[in-house]
Amino acid sequence: MVIPETFFAERTSLLKASEIRELLKWVAEGGIISFGGGMPSPATFPRQQIIEAITEGISEHGDKLLQYGTTQGLNELRSELKNFMEWRGINVSNVDDIVVLSGSQQGLDMFGKVFIDEGDVVLMELPAYLAAINAFKLYDPEFVGLKMDDDGIIMDSLESVLKELKSKHKKVKFLYTVPTCQNPTGVTLSVERRKRLLELASEYDFLIIEDDPYSLILYEPIDVAPLKSMDGEGRVTYLSTFSKILSPGLRLGWVLADARLIKKFVLAKQGMDLCTSPLLQYIAYVALKRKVIQENLSKIRGLYKTKRDKMLEALETYFPEGCKWTTPIGGLFIFAWVPERVNTKELIQDCIKKYGIAYVPGQSFFVDESGTNTMRLNFSYPAMDEIEEGIKRLGQAIKERL
Amino acid sequence: MVIPETFFAERTSLLKASEIRELLKWVAEGGIISFGGGMPSPATFPRQQIIEAITEGISEHGDKLLQYGTTQGLNELRSELKNFMEWRGINVSNVDDIVVLSGSQQGLDMFGKVFIDEGDVVLMELPAYLAAINAFKLYDPEFVGLKMDDDGIIMDSLESVLKELKSKHKKVKFLYTVPTCQNPTGVTLSVERRKRLLELASEYDFLIIEDDPYSLILYEPIDVAPLKSMDGEGRVTYLSTFSKILSPGLRLGWVLADARLIKKFVLAKQGMDLCTSPLLQYIAYVALKRKVIQENLSKIRGLYKTKRDKMLEALETYFPEGCKWTTPIGGLFIFAWVPERVNTKELIQDCIKKYGIAYVPGQSFFVDESGTNTMRLNFSYPAMDEIEEGIKRLGQAIKERL
Repeated sequence: MVIPETFFAERTSLLKASEIRELLKWVAEGGIISFGGGMPSPATFPRQQIIEAITEGISEHGDKLLQYGTTQGLNELRSELKNFMEWRGINVSNVDDIVVLSGSQQGLDMFGKVFIDEGDVVLMELPAYLAAINAFKLYDPEFVGLKMDDDGIIMDSLESVLKELKSKHKKVKFLYTVPTCQNPTGVTLSVERRKRLLELASEYDFLIIEDDPYSLILYEPIDVAPLKSMDGEGRVTYLSTFSKILSPGLRLGWVLADARLIKKFVLAKQGMDLCTSPLLQYIAYVALKRKVIQENLSKIRGLYKTKRDKMLEALETYFPEGCKWTTPIGGLFIFAWVPERVNTKELIQDCIKKYGIAYVPGQSFFVDESGTNTMRLNFSYPAMDEIEEGIKRLGQAIKERL
Repeated sequence: MVIPETFFAERTSLLKASEIRELLKWVAEGGIISFGGGMPSPATFPRQQIIEAITEGISEHGDKLLQYGTTQGLNELRSELKNFMEWRGINVSNVDDIVVLSGSQQGLDMFGKVFIDEGDVVLMELPAYLAAINAFKLYDPEFVGLKMDDDGIIMDSLESVLKELKSKHKKVKFLYTVPTCQNPTGVTLSVERRKRLLELASEYDFLIIEDDPYSLILYEPIDVAPLKSMDGEGRVTYLSTFSKILSPGLRLGWVLADARLIKKFVLAKQGMDLCTSPLLQYIAYVALKRKVIQENLSKIRGLYKTKRDKMLEALETYFPEGCKWTTPIGGLFIFAWVPERVNTKELIQDCIKKYGIAYVPGQSFFVDESGTNTMRLNFSYPAMDEIEEGIKRLGQAIKERL
C-alpha cells in the first residue's frame, strides 16, 4: 500500500527540511570542515560535574527524578532560574511565571500553537533565526520582515511597517527577536532601540518574544540589558536555553512570561510532552546552584573569542574584495555578504563537493526570500586550524565563481 | 497591562487542564491515597544501572551525548529497538522506520500535527486514553466513539459506524487504539477482532495508530500479538514508550511506521524539539542492550500482579452491589462502573475532602461524554496497604451517595 497524500493534514505541505539539520548530517559523515550548524564546542561541556549531579540526584532523589514530573518544571530549578535571571537584571516576581521547556525549540513550537491563527501577522528580523521561522510557519502566519543594520532592527523602518499594517487594519500578534548577538547575524540591538521597541509595542499593542541564548557568551563588555528587564507592561515573553551555557544534549530551555500567558503555555506543553525530564532538570539545577554554569562562562568566552578573532582575521586575509561581514560582540555566528552575482545556495554545492567545506546559505533566514548572496558562518564548533583552512578554501570557492 | 484574549490563537479555547495532571498535584501535596495518575512504582526503577549507563556514556561518548543529536534519534538505540520489537514479533525492515520521541505524548501531538485538519474524522475507543483525546483535540477533529466490551472494540459496531460515515461521505483519517491492557479500561482486543480490524481498515481505507505501552506488563499469558505484527499494508503506526518498562522520568518513546509517514514525522519533530536528548537515549540503549529492561520485566510483573490482585479483592469486599469493574490481564488500571445515579465527578469532591482518596472520574475518557458513573483506578503506584484502605474508603463514599 502506498499511503496517499490525502492522509496528511494540509499544514504538512509547509514542513520543509531545515538546511541546518541537513548540514548536521554532513558533519556527522565527517571529512568536511563545517561552519554550518550552531553547535557549541564539546570542550565546554562540564562532563564530570554532570556525572556527579546525576549520580547524586538518582541516589538521593531517584523516586522523584525518574518519575513523571509536573508540567511546569522542577521547583528547585525554577527557583534557581529566578536567581539566575535576577543576576541578569530581570526581575521575576514569582517562580510560577517560569516554565521549564524541553529545549527552547519547544518554546517556539508552543508560541506558534498558543498565538498564531492562519494569516496572523508575525514580525521577524531580516534575516531571522531559521528554526523560529520554520516552527512558526507551520501555523501559517503572514510574516513581515524588518530591516536591520549593525545595531539590530531599524526603528524607523519598524515604525513604517507598523503604520502600513495599521492602515490596512492588520494587527500584529508578536515580534520575534534575538536582540543580543543575533542568530544569524551576530548583531546586538542598541539600548536606544530597545527602549523605542518597547514604546512601539505599547503604542501599536503587540507582544514581543525575546529569544536570548547568547547574551552570556560575550567577548566584549556591553551595556545592554535584556528587553525583559525593561518591560513594564508584561509584553515581553523571555525565552532562553541551557544549550550554549551547559550542554545542548540536555535539551533544556525555559520561558518567563506574564502569568496569563504562562497558564496557556502550561496547558499547551501538557499536550506536547507532559513534562520535561526531571532528571535532566536536576542537572541544570545543580549546575546553577553550585555555580558550575557561572564559572564555566569565562572558559566558554575565552575559547570562542579566540575562534571569533581567528575567523575575522581569516576573512580579512582570504575573502575577495566586494565581500563584507559582521563583527559580533558575542554569540556563535558571523554573517557574510559575498558579491551580489554569487548565489550562495549554488556556491554551497561546489563548496561541499570540491572544497570539503560547509556553511548555511543565508536566503532561508530571510522571510522575504532576499539574501541570495549571504551565508552564516559558525565559529564555536570548528577547531582553530579548521577555521583558517576552511575560510581559505571558502575564499577560493568565491573567487572561482567571480 | 492585561493581555487580552485576542492575542491567543482560536485553538487555545480547546486547551483544557487534564484531570490526571491535576490529580498528580494532589499526590504531590501528600496525605491522600491516590488511584489517579498512571505512575509506575518507583521500586521498579533500575537506579544503579541508570547511573552506570550515564557515567559510562558521558566518560566515553560525552562529545556526542552532550551535543545536539539527529532528529530521528541515536542509531545505536534504534538498532536495539529493532531487535526489541522483533523479539515481540514485529518485523522491522529498516531502523530508519523508527523515530525516537521525547515521550510517547510527543507522538500523540505529532500525529495531530501530521494528520488532523479541522473536522477530520478520528475514531476513538469509548472510553479512550485521555491524554490522546486532549492532544488530538487541539487540531479540532470530529471524534467518533467506538463501543467496547471485555474483548475491546466491538467490530460489528465499528462496521456500522464506518458504513454510516461512508453514507455521509465522511472519510476516516485514523483510528486510535490501545489494544492491549487498554488505558483506561485494562481490556485487551481479542485476536479475532484484531484480524477484523485490519480487514476493515483496508476495506474502508483508514490508518490505525496502535499505542502499546503495556503489552509487556502482563500478569497472565495471552496469545495476542501487536496489531503492527499483523499489518501487511503499512496502515499501522506503532507507538510505545520506556515509561512503564524503565522510567517515565527519562521521557522516551518511539514510533515505528511506514517510511512515507516517518519522513513527515521527522520533519514535524524537527520543529517540535530538534531532537530528543542523546544522553537519555543512551540510557535506553544500554538498558536494552544489556537486557536490564528485559530482566526487570519479571520484577515489574510480579509486583503489579500482587497489587492488581489486592485491588480486585478489595473491590469485591468493599464496593456496594450494583458496581462492576474490569479484570485486566496486565497494565496499570482497573475501570469501574458505580450505580448510574452516582456521578463520579461529584463523588470525587467528597472523596478528596472527606475520605482522603483520589481516582480519575471516567467521563473525560469518553468522547461522547457518557460514562458519568465510571472511574479509573490505578494500582501500580499506591502501596499494598493503601490499596486496601483506599478501596475501603471509596466503597464507603459510594455507599454514602446511594
